[in-house]
Amino acid sequence: MSALPAKALQGAWVNGEAQSTVSVLERGLHYGDGLFETIACLAEGPRFLERHLQRLKRGCEQLGFGPLELPQLAEEVRSAATGQRAVLKLLVTRGIARARGYAPSGQEVATRVLLRYGWPHEDAALAQGGVRIAISGVRLGENPALAGLKHCNRLEQVLARRALCDPHITEALMFSSSGALISGTMTNVFLVRDGRLLTPRLDRCGVAGIMRAVVLSLAVAGGIPAEEAVLDARDLDAAQELFLTNALLGIRPVGELPGRALPVGPLTRTLQSYLAPLLAAAPGAAHA
Amino acid sequence: MSALPAKALQGAWVNGEAQSTVSVLERGLHYGDGLFETIACLAEGPRFLERHLQRLKRGCEQLGFGPLELPQLAEEVRSAATGQRAVLKLLVTRGIARARGYAPSGQEVATRVLLRYGWPHEDAALAQGGVRIAISGVRLGENPALAGLKHCNRLEQVLARRALCDPHITEALMFSSSGALISGTMTNVFLVRDGRLLTPRLDRCGVAGIMRAVVLSLAVAGGIPAEEAVLDARDLDAAQELFLTNALLGIRPVGELPGRALPVGPLTRTLQSYLAPLLAAAPGAAHA
Repeated sequence: MSALPAKALQGAWVNGEAQSTVSVLERGLHYGDGLFETIACLAEGPRFLERHLQRLKRGCEQLGFGPLELPQLAEEVRSAATGQRAVLKLLVTRGIARARGYAPSGQEVATRVLLRYGWPHEDAALAQGGVRIAISGVRLGENPALAGLKHCNRLEQVLARRALCDPHITEALMFSSSGALISGTMTNVFLVRDGRLLTPRLDRCGVAGIMRAVVLSLAVAGGIPAEEAVLDARDLDAAQELFLTNALLGIRPVGELPGRALPVGPLTRTLQSYLAPLLAAAPGAAHA
Repeated sequence: MSALPAKALQGAWVNGEAQSTVSVLERGLHYGDGLFETIACLAEGPRFLERHLQRLKRGCEQLGFGPLELPQLAEEVRSAATGQRAVLKLLVTRGIARARGYAPSGQEVATRVLLRYGWPHEDAALAQGGVRIAISGVRLGENPALAGLKHCNRLEQVLARRALCDPHITEALMFSSSGALISGTMTNVFLVRDGRLLTPRLDRCGVAGIMRAVVLSLAVAGGIPAEEAVLDARDLDAAQELFLTNALLGIRPVGELPGRALPVGPLTRTLQSYLAPLLAAAPGAAHA
């Protein structure tokens, strides 16, 4: 392979070595048999690194990947950071297939792929004024064995993003096959109703986001009633505030749903203010 | 990359060139954003090639991949066949990512990966006497937007195969999250009840197998009442005959389910006899 054409890609490493290819026998390629983390890097280093690595470790255990050397992985992630804002994508697959077919041999050695991208362009007004979002027509299949994991079976999200054609609409909410509100395509979602913070339970599908966990912890710390709940379209209709989270964006208020404008409310603002100091620093790096 | 350690791998090609690696930016690797075909190659050439290519084409259209040059692809598949029995795995991804994130740019060029493996060891007694199978504890998530496609989001099958530890049990039946019988991990399933052939509808999940379609056509041709239906555990209990199909195995009778022995019945035998001449030749190659 010669050029790496992806926009703003700055570097690629495989198993700790600068490398831009993987084997055609990668189980990640054949079955999406992998997990990933999208890590914000600040001047001080990778943000929430310890949380990312712990989630990755839990995922590897749940899928039965070979053991991960977390200190080595942490060192590789830190080495890939440059002291400038960047996005690191860390992808860990079960490894190279030992034989044809779905069954792992149990002897695979996990493959680590690390990519560094430039920080995405941001519209500061969006973080304040709220984004416009859609409701996706693509439903999420339900599988408790995979729920919560940031695994590489992401065709549902690919199809949902592909259907988003209006550049002013930045995200789409997704419901499960049984009608539960789950998340955005690349964000978790929170509702506020009567002073209470609600976010979908993720025991049947969805990704248990790092920023989602941080925001839930901040709510608890701040004495805000917060709950993971089974939510549906009526809960969405009844929401007085609505915001999205992900590891890069932090909290992104929603200003407009189809047919309905929402004010950016006081609880969203409070949580943004709690979160601000954690976003500016790189606590994961500092404490790891 | 140097060695290709997978058991019995004989050759690897990427976009028509002998090559054993793909880009780290492959959307197949990141999201399972691909489709595949497993093609039996006989002395005469690839079997059911035209059916495989047509299914692949439909999948590419449904997922919105760039256009496939089917004549070119057919030529590549035929060139990879050696005149000896072999298994060809043809994997087509959306291509190399142009930017970070789930959304395709629409400018991707599909990547073609072709792998040739030796023909798997077969126990002839199994084809006659019937196999022992399990019921998988892993359920299949339901998504009409992906149902029927042989796409690369296969973690459910990986987990189901991983849970199969008894080497005498060759397959496991899988149910959907809503309790419908769907398929085996790598096979489609047919039941016989009162002289009627039944196979699960695949409009919510499952892979619409090539051999499944061939067997349904043969049943129709032979005047055997055959139906795609919504089936559940009670239908499985009531089955008088049971068999599995896939592109390599043809028809594989089931001799034993958990707690229950099944005779290999007359309708299964009849369909095996209808199928035998089609399995021996390579009709796809002859008619393509």
